[in-house]
Amino acid sequence: MEFRIEKDTMGEVKVPADKYWGAQTERSRNNFKIGPSASMPLEIIYGFAYLKKAAAHANFELGVLPEEKRDLISTVCDEILAGKLDDQFPLVIWQTGSGTQSNMNVNEVIANRAHEIAGKKIGEGEKTIQPNDDVNKSQSSNDTFPTGMHIACYKMIVETTIPGVEKLRNSLNEKAKAFANVVKIGRTHLMDATPLTVGQEFSGYVSQLDHGLKALKNTLPHLSELALGGTAVGTGLNTPKGYDVLVAKKIAEFTKLPFVTAENKFEALAAHDALVESHGALKQLAVSLNKIANDIRLMASGPRSGIGELIIPANEPGSSIMPGKVNPTQAEALTMVCAQVIGNDVAVTVGGTQGHYELNVFKPIMANNVLQSARLLGDACVSFNDNCVKGIEPNTPRIKELVDNSLMLVTALNTKIGYYKAAEIANTAHKNGTTLKEEAIRLGYVTAEQYDEWVKPEDMTSGLK
Amino acid sequence: MEFRIEKDTMGEVKVPADKYWGAQTERSRNNFKIGPSASMPLEIIYGFAYLKKAAAHANFELGVLPEEKRDLISTVCDEILAGKLDDQFPLVIWQTGSGTQSNMNVNEVIANRAHEIAGKKIGEGEKTIQPNDDVNKSQSSNDTFPTGMHIACYKMIVETTIPGVEKLRNSLNEKAKAFANVVKIGRTHLMDATPLTVGQEFSGYVSQLDHGLKALKNTLPHLSELALGGTAVGTGLNTPKGYDVLVAKKIAEFTKLPFVTAENKFEALAAHDALVESHGALKQLAVSLNKIANDIRLMASGPRSGIGELIIPANEPGSSIMPGKVNPTQAEALTMVCAQVIGNDVAVTVGGTQGHYELNVFKPIMANNVLQSARLLGDACVSFNDNCVKGIEPNTPRIKELVDNSLMLVTALNTKIGYYKAAEIANTAHKNGTTLKEEAIRLGYVTAEQYDEWVKPEDMTSGLK
Amino acid sequence: MEFRIEKDTMGEVKVPADKYWGAQTERSRNNFKIGPSASMPLEIIYGFAYLKKAAAHANFELGVLPEEKRDLISTVCDEILAGKLDDQFPLVIWQTGSGTQSNMNVNEVIANRAHEIAGKKIGEGEKTIQPNDDVNKSQSSNDTFPTGMHIACYKMIVETTIPGVEKLRNSLNEKAKAFANVVKIGRTHLMDATPLTVGQEFSGYVSQLDHGLKALKNTLPHLSELALGGTAVGTGLNTPKGYDVLVAKKIAEFTKLPFVTAENKFEALAAHDALVESHGALKQLAVSLNKIANDIRLMASGPRSGIGELIIPANEPGSSIMPGKVNPTQAEALTMVCAQVIGNDVAVTVGGTQGHYELNVFKPIMANNVLQSARLLGDACVSFNDNCVKGIEPNTPRIKELVDNSLMLVTALNTKIGYYKAAEIANTAHKNGTTLKEEAIRLGYVTAEQYDEWVKPEDMTSGLK
Amino acid sequence: MEFRIEKDTMGEVKVPADKYWGAQTERSRNNFKIGPSASMPLEIIYGFAYLKKAAAHANFELGVLPEEKRDLISTVCDEILAGKLDDQFPLVIWQTGSGTQSNMNVNEVIANRAHEIAGKKIGEGEKTIQPNDDVNKSQSSNDTFPTGMHIACYKMIVETTIPGVEKLRNSLNEKAKAFANVVKIGRTHLMDATPLTVGQEFSGYVSQLDHGLKALKNTLPHLSELALGGTAVGTGLNTPKGYDVLVAKKIAEFTKLPFVTAENKFEALAAHDALVESHGALKQLAVSLNKIANDIRLMASGPRSGIGELIIPANEPGSSIMPGKVNPTQAEALTMVCAQVIGNDVAVTVGGTQGHYELNVFKPIMANNVLQSARLLGDACVSFNDNCVKGIEPNTPRIKELVDNSLMLVTALNTKIGYYKAAEIANTAHKNGTTLKEEAIRLGYVTAEQYDEWVKPEDMTSGLK
Repeated sequence: MEFRIEKDTMGEVKVPADKYWGAQTERSRNNFKIGPSASMPLEIIYGFAYLKKAAAHANFELGVLPEEKRDLISTVCDEILAGKLDDQFPLVIWQTGSGTQSNMNVNEVIANRAHEIAGKKIGEGEKTIQPNDDVNKSQSSNDTFPTGMHIACYKMIVETTIPGVEKLRNSLNEKAKAFANVVKIGRTHLMDATPLTVGQEFSGYVSQLDHGLKALKNTLPHLSELALGGTAVGTGLNTPKGYDVLVAKKIAEFTKLPFVTAENKFEALAAHDALVESHGALKQLAVSLNKIANDIRLMASGPRSGIGELIIPANEPGSSIMPGKVNPTQAEALTMVCAQVIGNDVAVTVGGTQGHYELNVFKPIMANNVLQSARLLGDACVSFNDNCVKGIEPNTPRIKELVDNSLMLVTALNTKIGYYKAAEIANTAHKNGTTLKEEAIRLGYVTAEQYDEWVKPEDMTSGLK
Repeated sequence: MEFRIEKDTMGEVKVPADKYWGAQTERSRNNFKIGPSASMPLEIIYGFAYLKKAAAHANFELGVLPEEKRDLISTVCDEILAGKLDDQFPLVIWQTGSGTQSNMNVNEVIANRAHEIAGKKIGEGEKTIQPNDDVNKSQSSNDTFPTGMHIACYKMIVETTIPGVEKLRNSLNEKAKAFANVVKIGRTHLMDATPLTVGQEFSGYVSQLDHGLKALKNTLPHLSELALGGTAVGTGLNTPKGYDVLVAKKIAEFTKLPFVTAENKFEALAAHDALVESHGALKQLAVSLNKIANDIRLMASGPRSGIGELIIPANEPGSSIMPGKVNPTQAEALTMVCAQVIGNDVAVTVGGTQGHYELNVFKPIMANNVLQSARLLGDACVSFNDNCVKGIEPNTPRIKELVDNSLMLVTALNTKIGYYKAAEIANTAHKNGTTLKEEAIRLGYVTAEQYDEWVKPEDMTSGLK
Repeated sequence: MEFRIEKDTMGEVKVPADKYWGAQTERSRNNFKIGPSASMPLEIIYGFAYLKKAAAHANFELGVLPEEKRDLISTVCDEILAGKLDDQFPLVIWQTGSGTQSNMNVNEVIANRAHEIAGKKIGEGEKTIQPNDDVNKSQSSNDTFPTGMHIACYKMIVETTIPGVEKLRNSLNEKAKAFANVVKIGRTHLMDATPLTVGQEFSGYVSQLDHGLKALKNTLPHLSELALGGTAVGTGLNTPKGYDVLVAKKIAEFTKLPFVTAENKFEALAAHDALVESHGALKQLAVSLNKIANDIRLMASGPRSGIGELIIPANEPGSSIMPGKVNPTQAEALTMVCAQVIGNDVAVTVGGTQGHYELNVFKPIMANNVLQSARLLGDACVSFNDNCVKGIEPNTPRIKELVDNSLMLVTALNTKIGYYKAAEIANTAHKNGTTLKEEAIRLGYVTAEQYDEWVKPEDMTSGLK
Repeated sequence: MEFRIEKDTMGEVKVPADKYWGAQTERSRNNFKIGPSASMPLEIIYGFAYLKKAAAHANFELGVLPEEKRDLISTVCDEILAGKLDDQFPLVIWQTGSGTQSNMNVNEVIANRAHEIAGKKIGEGEKTIQPNDDVNKSQSSNDTFPTGMHIACYKMIVETTIPGVEKLRNSLNEKAKAFANVVKIGRTHLMDATPLTVGQEFSGYVSQLDHGLKALKNTLPHLSELALGGTAVGTGLNTPKGYDVLVAKKIAEFTKLPFVTAENKFEALAAHDALVESHGALKQLAVSLNKIANDIRLMASGPRSGIGELIIPANEPGSSIMPGKVNPTQAEALTMVCAQVIGNDVAVTVGGTQGHYELNVFKPIMANNVLQSARLLGDACVSFNDNCVKGIEPNTPRIKELVDNSLMLVTALNTKIGYYKAAEIANTAHKNGTTLKEEAIRLGYVTAEQYDEWVKPEDMTSGLK
């Protein structure tokens, strides 16, 4: 491999000749061989591209950067956002906890690529654009990395998580309407209970997701606050007047998302409670989705020795040894995602607790977990929706069989003959393996006509008239 | 001990003669000897008292309960709320996961105490009030327990957590104002960085708590939704028309809190995402408070071999072996609470994931963790506030000494002589153990006059003019 | 209330006249009003009683404490261990993180009670025994509290957790043997699979608990290491030569448990990885028990619309609204305990990560969580065992019905006719609602005789002959 | 792109012509678009290669597979292990929870590649080797996936985690010896305490890692148990006699690791407590490492406004805005890894709790988290060791300055003049800003000679002589 020499304040470093990055990136590559390479999420790199471009524009407008430098920087940022430089960001999550090295990676790539765009050869002559003095102007890692991660996480949540969850929510809602009159046995404590409709059951899932989506959206204002302009410790040292508001406005403009400058930059650097807050809502969605997926697979269990009330699509052979087996694989993928999100929440929490003084240095891990959870939840909801929920159908003969046999219909008699007599009927039928009606009449508590009038499963799916 | 005989649908049970509870409570006592007795929080019992009274009123108004029964039930509920019957609730958290046995405990105590109030002797004659048919009318454990726990948790959050956190937030805000001009060295990565004021530092803590309070308040609407009226599986079986809305209105009236009937009762029984949501916000506050308490104890560390920038009150002798030692004990209590809340969050989450079909049977544990976290956070904030934060003073000579010695003031030169030369000055001073000014001049990058004009710590606590 | 005056190095304090505690305890009561009072577990106080007695004996034998002081201290320690002074320890968990205040509480109670035993009046005359100089001799909070908590946790694990889990393990093993020949349908992915016996299923639970018990026992050596003798920072300052080994020997003698002095006292004060380790094993048991309890309640679900393969004891009426309902309440209590233990594990972990320099100041919370988890798991296993598992019976007609109907018996044909043809048979029978045998013959892949010879559920519960 | 047609029991599927995989792999690719592609760890694929080869050998020796098929299968497995087919495994973690689709991916790749090795063209003619009937012979996904994941996790732990931790442990031990006589001030509650040596402090870290390594090794026997031979539900259906023991022996032979057949196959399929157990120990190591890394960065904090007792290597420029800054970046990377491992532990735990009946379907996520944690811990320990710990040096002038100034040396006087007088000296010196010696003499409690004889920091680093 060929190399060129790059320099930073500590001296010279050999860098692969075909890469745009510089000395500090290369040092980080060598010093942090932890896990697979290039694990720093590209979404964060793209967040940096937005903010570097915005900073260049703001710096120009505030008179501290010449127009040609602004344009060179902007051009490279656009290339990054177009995915043309994806292979120029080799660093890992497990680097300095401020993300300084990824900030410098971006600074170096922009500077060297700009040099090239300016018609020069990398490594030759004075850099047209300086990584620190130009690309990083009016910035610090300490305010750029949190800005980049807020941009990345916000985008992932609004572009992947929310649409994915909403898609699933809408399908569940359609099912709730479609099955609104399918009366089935209810189950509490896993035991037979009074009836409800399949539509009512599904309406509960819809309500869970509605509440979860609301909770997630409640966290977006905090996440929309950007640290940029705080520089090293939150004071805004070395930034021109008005810069923080302006640069946030530029970012909002470029991303078309409602970003604003953080009211308090000290909070925005030293704590990442916004990530804790958003991930808390992602975790709540994971809790809801786990419940929903579990219910669906339990109700679809069988085909002959389970509950068998729902029929789910058969997407693939289910077993390498048991022929003809169809499994609730989409529910499994989704619940595995939920377990991961629940674990990630703890990682984010632990990272969040450990800020010290003016800086939290668990930025990369916190951002990475939010991004992973947000993406997995969105993707898994779409997969679960498209490959399972949309195809769900009630197994009506089975549903009818179970509701007709149930002993819990006796509850309808509570208001007619009292809880104690009703219990006696149910217990006797259970002991004798008979029907409620038989025992109700034999015990002399109701006539056949009364029984038929009072015990109607379909009437039991709502309150008294 | 003397006993009397009580009955339920399974037969007779011997109950201590001096207790109001009945057969089902006694069965639960015998069947669930797990952990210390009477661990079911009294706050939940009080929540039940509100809802039993509200149900009696709603049942009366809707014509399904006679006035005298309403009044007897209400009277006992008021006694419970006055704390007169605290020793009548011996059950543990670790019972049936629907809380059925605590619901029956309340039903039985109300029925027997009402019998007594009606001038009769417990255990003699037909019960004046039936536990199931009267006290539990239009109810099920499945909708009462979640209603009781929402009432309990909501009250704890608005009466203990929020006031406690706000008290601390306000003291921190006063300190932020009082110390607004105390310039100190900033620290990032635990290392010396550019200066800021103590007030700015504290303003970050205020901002953390403001965001946390907002996040917590965002969860209250979900928590204000009451399951009551859903009865066994959410359909409202055996409830009179209009009951759910009316009973929630009564509860709101009695508690003076904005409770409403849950829009979707299936969600309200089968999932307890509202608890997951509220606890998520409590956990976020724990994350913030951990950071704040850590910072304060680090800055107060010493007296001679630590940071020593803050002076905190000495409330007690710090060591049983080291005389004269004063420790940041309030910060320790608070951070221990934070660790517990972070653990509790996982318990609530795990409980929340495991609802099945129409019922989540992790109600007692979920409610207990929310109550514990909400109380501990509120109490600990008050304790930390009263016994530590209110007495914090800056150690100004020490603060000045540290800021004056710092090498990071060199950052002020970046915009004057560029990042590279500034770095050289700092590195040289570090190596030689000299001051920045000495090296800046010796290296010929600035004059003494320029240095004095450009490097002013107090000017470095905000952006460029 | 009457008071007397007590003094410490900070001055005078008013203490309730009828209590043995002194100034530092009273200061702590006033300064830490967090959660319910007296929450510091008595088990830890008893641990202190063992160690204070042991220290007095060791100090006497090493010539630094006179015999009469040893005897006075020992006498009070024995009173504490007999439960006679339980109301003398009013402090909370949420105090100083070193537990200093509880150490002083014990020191003060011993000193004052000894004064009384010596025939004097508390508060009058010079103390016969000094809390710091005598009771605390050769000790520090920093080594006594970890010693007390190791004693408490070790005892709880070997006296409550392990016997409780073993009791359950043995019952499950008896069931495994009793049901060794009950052939049932297996289920994977919740779907019908090839058959096994109920006994085989239960043997898996036994194996889980065997592995869990082994894992828990693996952690005991670390927990048996005692910090005592490390004093303030682990160096053993102010302890006589040979003291650490001797005092551990005394503790082992008094508790009849194999305690030893920690090889490295710095680890024993600054980190509490032994608690992290033991709780990790408790958490593993919670994972296993959750699985076992879930399976049992799923298999006992019904009575008519569930799986219905197992019959569990009916211990109490299951519903306040649905008469005749019997619920798996013991499984619910156990799984709630499991959720709590899983949450507690995170609390212990978070506490464990945050030691600083020579001391971890999350001692009380870490110890409290280990104690709670250890107790709850032990108690819940006994409750689940006595009130559920011992009474489990297979519902043989139902089990036979399900196995006979299953389509997955087709797997027996894989080795005879190949996976693809076998799958075709199963799929056709599923589609047509017919039996495997019908379709196997109709498709011409086997004769009736071959089918009967090859497809025997009982032969499918082990490998090829 | 060109395609060929592959078939499974559900019909035909178009597969990229240049890939070896077949119908089921392709179905999974289409049905599970969740997160980045090919996220199923290669380590698990390699685990499969070992077991498929071992199964082929065992099947041959037990007479159920011809020699030429054994050899073809073995040859492809060796290619997989040589990394030649890495691009043939495109599936994601978030698939069916049994890992069936990855098992089939391996089966299909082996079958098609074997066809090619046998000189035929993929997609033409009958397959030389059948994916289900040959490659998967005597196997099921349900026993292969857990076997593959045990192999992968065991290897990662013994090849990466343990060597990495041991490397760090050994360097810390060297430092403990090298700094055995450097007396420094101790700190408890972050406050000045009695002295110890830097070597003693480091010996505590060594002890933490020794305990952690022992705990991790304690989990290996459980992890060495292989499910293979259990087939679909643990009964070993369709396996030849003696197969399970033999196939484990083959795997042990091929991997040179002490794998054995699981004593109880039902546990090995339905629960993955072995992963829970091993990850619990990884989490314990994360707790220890977090403490160690925190201490080191706190002691290295400064250079002028922190503790400054340790000097750590400067590996890279620390700040993009503050010139000359050197940060404890290795400690940051390591503590971020610790936070991730702590979160992963919860994901593994949640997955572990949710097995149902004969199968746990959280296999891929559980295995992936164990693999990630094991790798990250090992890698991060090496990085922290090589780039930080090996270069640590004590800042002796600073250490001496701090110990000489400390007030806690007064503790040495406890045994001479009593705790109360010693406290008075310390408090007076603190108030007056004077030295202990000055006040000790001025208060008349000791002479200058006594002070010098009794208060020697170096004598305070061990117990009384």
